[in-house]
Amino acid sequence: MKINNIPYRSIWVHPENSTIIQVIDQRFLPHQLIVKDLKTVDEAAFAIKEMLVRGAPLIGATAAYGLYLASLAIDSKSDLVGMNEFFANSEKQLMATRPTAINLQWALNRQMQAIGSVDSLEEKRKIAFQTAIDICNEDVDICRKIGEFGLPLIEKISQEKNGEPVNILTHCNAGWIATVDWGTATSPIYQAHDKGIAVHVWVDETRPRNQGARLTAWELSEHGIPHSVIVDNVGGHLMQHGQVDMCIVGTDRTTYTGDVANKIGTYLKALAAHDNDVPFYVALPSTTIDWECRDGFTIPIEQRDSKEVTLIQGLHENEIKKVQLTPDKSNAANYAFDVTPARLVTALITEKGICDASEDGILKLFPEGKNA
Amino acid sequence: MKINNIPYRSIWVHPENSTIIQVIDQRFLPHQLIVKDLKTVDEAAFAIKEMLVRGAPLIGATAAYGLYLASLAIDSKSDLVGMNEFFANSEKQLMATRPTAINLQWALNRQMQAIGSVDSLEEKRKIAFQTAIDICNEDVDICRKIGEFGLPLIEKISQEKNGEPVNILTHCNAGWIATVDWGTATSPIYQAHDKGIAVHVWVDETRPRNQGARLTAWELSEHGIPHSVIVDNVGGHLMQHGQVDMCIVGTDRTTYTGDVANKIGTYLKALAAHDNDVPFYVALPSTTIDWECRDGFTIPIEQRDSKEVTLIQGLHENEIKKVQLTPDKSNAANYAFDVTPARLVTALITEKGICDASEDGILKLFPEGKNA
Repeated sequence: MKINNIPYRSIWVHPENSTIIQVIDQRFLPHQLIVKDLKTVDEAAFAIKEMLVRGAPLIGATAAYGLYLASLAIDSKSDLVGMNEFFANSEKQLMATRPTAINLQWALNRQMQAIGSVDSLEEKRKIAFQTAIDICNEDVDICRKIGEFGLPLIEKISQEKNGEPVNILTHCNAGWIATVDWGTATSPIYQAHDKGIAVHVWVDETRPRNQGARLTAWELSEHGIPHSVIVDNVGGHLMQHGQVDMCIVGTDRTTYTGDVANKIGTYLKALAAHDNDVPFYVALPSTTIDWECRDGFTIPIEQRDSKEVTLIQGLHENEIKKVQLTPDKSNAANYAFDVTPARLVTALITEKGICDASEDGILKLFPEGKNA
Repeated sequence: MKINNIPYRSIWVHPENSTIIQVIDQRFLPHQLIVKDLKTVDEAAFAIKEMLVRGAPLIGATAAYGLYLASLAIDSKSDLVGMNEFFANSEKQLMATRPTAINLQWALNRQMQAIGSVDSLEEKRKIAFQTAIDICNEDVDICRKIGEFGLPLIEKISQEKNGEPVNILTHCNAGWIATVDWGTATSPIYQAHDKGIAVHVWVDETRPRNQGARLTAWELSEHGIPHSVIVDNVGGHLMQHGQVDMCIVGTDRTTYTGDVANKIGTYLKALAAHDNDVPFYVALPSTTIDWECRDGFTIPIEQRDSKEVTLIQGLHENEIKKVQLTPDKSNAANYAFDVTPARLVTALITEKGICDASEDGILKLFPEGKNA
């Protein structure tokens, strides 16, 4: 999507040097737009672990490029055993960066298979490069399709409201910078806006890391979409008063029965939507469906550093600073995700269409899934 | 309750000069404990409006002292008409500081009646002073009783858990510094702790103004009560996983039918409690019952400055600073309260006992209420 009127992706090959991958360092958004060069697998792993890049699809894409960068570091005199060992270690290193993201495993598996399918180092480098590019292009395609399937849901409300702005609430950032382009939850919104449908987005700030206030607000602002940032406490009140027409969120992992693991606080918004008859949609690429997991409550929930709760980052006199929010002596607990049970989800929006958040619904769209 | 092991109230008469009222300037908590002198009605109004003091009971107490301070400023040569005019203007000035707090109106009415019951300036000063003191002492008594009625609820869970800590979630600050002492939601907790019952409090940070992270955490910390600060998104997840035994919150205004207006986000926690069979209690002095209001959804909801959302205050290198969280071009909306419908409230804890959140339940405890 656009930044200051120029189309961007969230990850790309340096236009003059194909041994360098470039990403937006999302830690400094919305205050500074910093493009970061990734030249080694260490730098790719660092970028994922330290959340320069985040969002399941972008993590996968970055990991795939990470193995390509690994291939560039291998000595051309290495034998096959040495090469394989290096790739295996690099894969392990990349896999260890974020335990919850299922796309990470998927992208690494695919890249390792591609690399393993050829023997010479030159071929391995070539196929790793191409596979990473393919993964990115396919992700763009998937996200575009999610938008195409989601668009009529917005269009219908717009018609019912005689063209008055459709109010859409979203949580966290399932936007284009969490993917390669378009985003998941935001894709229908961008497509509606680009088609001239009036939309207004309620952006949950999404404590503790404020991905909504920092990233979603920034994306929407740069692309010119009307929006209002709200604290995470507000959505229920808005829904009680008819100020939300629909919710769309992303997901980090969805069970094949339709339970949705997503950023902490998603469950609370789904409860409010249910209580006020507001449709609650989850947009997802089918790669985030976990075909092994029947019950969302068995998904391990990442607990992160309590400093994400006690400290917060923002801009003070043109410098990015962290301030402490809590008393010195107070503990803090930091759960990163929660699980929204399928019963609270109106439907899933995927790259193959819209389906019920249920085993039946999902299997109708993805009959091959369970054997995947 | 205690600060650094010394018992405090949130408002008191200067021990050496009864023309000065002292309050804790809560804007700088938890980072700095600053006691502020109030010497004029303007200073009292400023303290309420700028939220040096907040919380319905403390606002009422401060307003009552405000009229006492007004009486000190009246020229002893004034006639009754001049005095009455001055008091009426002072009342108006104090009333305009915070539109939503029902205690403000109540305390001012009571103080104006008291002042109007005597004729000389000397008598008016005396009765205004005594009435403010009475309002404070009665508030302490009311809050203590709320705690006594709430205590058995905690005790029962403690017994069922064989003395394991009772996990209590609270939202915002309905603590002793929102009242004169004890607090409302916190009073049962302080009394349980003081009795030796193990408790652990989940403290919602309560964006946008972070009264939980700043004030409730500070209170509990100073009094020695185990607690963990969490972002407002976490409570639902904790309830899903059996980590919350009960919720207790305060209220700014409760309809006589049991709908509860409280800090924005309360409704979301009540939904989660309901969905997970966690009891959800609201602690309140009966002065916050609105006997005119049948339907909570007619209560006007204060919209505050969007800067409370876009900027946040914290400590950076020992200085209190505000940092900007959102992109320059993003709008923000700031709703201060929401309404939790009575159906989601397990019971009300008042100074006269515990009752159902319903017209019947409330009238059984307060049969005189509707004619008040």
